Amino acid sequence: MAVYTHVDPDDLATLVARYDIGTVVSCKGIAEGVENSNFLLETTGGRFILTLYERRVSEADLPFFVDLLDHLAKHDSPVPAMIRDRNGAAIQQISGRAACVIQFLPGISLTHPTPGQCEAAGAALGAMHRAVADFGGARENSMGHRHWRAVAGGAGNLDTVLPGLQAIVDDELAFLDANWPRDLPAHVIHADLFPDNVLMLGERVTGLIDFYFAASDFRAYDLVITHASWAFSTDGTHCDPSRARALMRGYAGEVTLTGAEIAALPVLARGAALRFLLTRSHDWIHTPADALVTRKDPSPFLARLERYRAADAAGLFAAA
Amino acid sequence: MAVYTHVDPDDLATLVARYDIGTVVSCKGIAEGVENSNFLLETTGGRFILTLYERRVSEADLPFFVDLLDHLAKHDSPVPAMIRDRNGAAIQQISGRAACVIQFLPGISLTHPTPGQCEAAGAALGAMHRAVADFGGARENSMGHRHWRAVAGGAGNLDTVLPGLQAIVDDELAFLDANWPRDLPAHVIHADLFPDNVLMLGERVTGLIDFYFAASDFRAYDLVITHASWAFSTDGTHCDPSRARALMRGYAGEVTLTGAEIAALPVLARGAALRFLLTRSHDWIHTPADALVTRKDPSPFLARLERYRAADAAGLFAAA
Repeated sequence: MAVYTHVDPDDLATLVARYDIGTVVSCKGIAEGVENSNFLLETTGGRFILTLYERRVSEADLPFFVDLLDHLAKHDSPVPAMIRDRNGAAIQQISGRAACVIQFLPGISLTHPTPGQCEAAGAALGAMHRAVADFGGARENSMGHRHWRAVAGGAGNLDTVLPGLQAIVDDELAFLDANWPRDLPAHVIHADLFPDNVLMLGERVTGLIDFYFAASDFRAYDLVITHASWAFSTDGTHCDPSRARALMRGYAGEVTLTGAEIAALPVLARGAALRFLLTRSHDWIHTPADALVTRKDPSPFLARLERYRAADAAGLFAAA
Repeated sequence: MAVYTHVDPDDLATLVARYDIGTVVSCKGIAEGVENSNFLLETTGGRFILTLYERRVSEADLPFFVDLLDHLAKHDSPVPAMIRDRNGAAIQQISGRAACVIQFLPGISLTHPTPGQCEAAGAALGAMHRAVADFGGARENSMGHRHWRAVAGGAGNLDTVLPGLQAIVDDELAFLDANWPRDLPAHVIHADLFPDNVLMLGERVTGLIDFYFAASDFRAYDLVITHASWAFSTDGTHCDPSRARALMRGYAGEVTLTGAEIAALPVLARGAALRFLLTRSHDWIHTPADALVTRKDPSPFLARLERYRAADAAGLFAAA
């Protein structure tokens, strides 16, 4: 759920007049993106997404995101291009917020991807990784391995989420500190490529969106985040072998993992499951029960963590 | 704020396949309408609004709304037509909700209408009244005069909203019971034509939307609801004479009020102000303070009520 900030029609007309995109025909707040206000803006020149940046997205990070999307769009990744105004500026101000006008992409987000759609998502992730490899920008992953102890500490008493969770998390943090890989291939990654953030039409990926967690990290860590979010049952207890294999096969068609990466996948996947377990637990504890925003249940990521801890976990990452 | 219900892409494709509107290109939840889940649906055949009916809109009332919009669309009112499927059905089921696919209309809702825009809104209301006059449907106005005592009683202790409000409301209910007009021209009215529910491009009305409070009542009561919502300062203390005159002039160009209606306008306007004061007070009391939904402040409608109670109130309704 999003759309926090109201946009005055006169201010909108002024903003749109800076661009070569015609005049406003329609502007509707949309429930897309978790941390920003998003509007579907139609002008006489086409359709666009207008994003106003709220809370978690730092204005200082915006040039990084603009450069990243520019780079990916130039390399034919299906990402939404940031539209430039007549002076070449992508970042604007409206309603007291930093804002961007962004290309509209067709497609819808899936809730129950098929193996064919998982393969397409894996291929799109791999192609994006190839395109981003020579991107010059960098950004600290504030949700990355180095920060999980702080995230866990800031969440509060994890046993209030699920009895026994605190001890499980403490154990896992110790394991990951001892076993987290070093020196794997790294570049800027999406870091949140859940099905919500992939637009598709049938089995065709039409858009990779919501790059606002993008940061520098291991490319194989991006892959396991996608694995964790595309290949499991909703409750997280079951990893569907056909969807997992299809995802890995799609990715392998674009990127050849090194032996060190393949060996590290189960550990990286435990880290990915822990990362979302921690942030969802934080939000669970800090979101009032009667708030209208939906708290996302952390337990499906505890279930994934347990699945990734099993002795046979390496088999979940086979491509065939 | 809206969008409560998630729509599965497969269910959406099945729904869209019932219509002659092509296949799904995009579907985004929009923050429009207060009580329903709304989606901006794009297909290869065009753009539409998909509405899923929640809570306050009774499924039993849907045929009334469909017939009303059909009637108005046939009479060239700029209302969104309900799209029929191949079997002629306008009302569908998806995600456990009744749902309609509705024509998309261009335009944006104003926040600070100019006198020219108020005149256009008044004219659009008048033209809609002329179009609806021979509509055969009828619906009890559950937010009408007969129900205000019950609404006030159900809201709770009004003094928790504003100290002294309970006594003001009790006085006003007694006054309106004694002075509410009878036998004024009546038909189905919109009953909620705030600026949010009018789409405009410049000074042209492109859409009258959100008819889900439409019900049978005095046409002049519809006019004063529009007066109360278009001609006042945001805090409700000031009625802008140029906007009020423009609105009344626009309406008068389409509908000639009777002498009895003109005489009744101040009383009707007190009723309109009380109706929104009561429903906003109800929501104020019953919405948790930390809910993410914005509670609408009731006090601007107390300010309007006080303005309409003033000895010179009749002058607020002059068209010139």
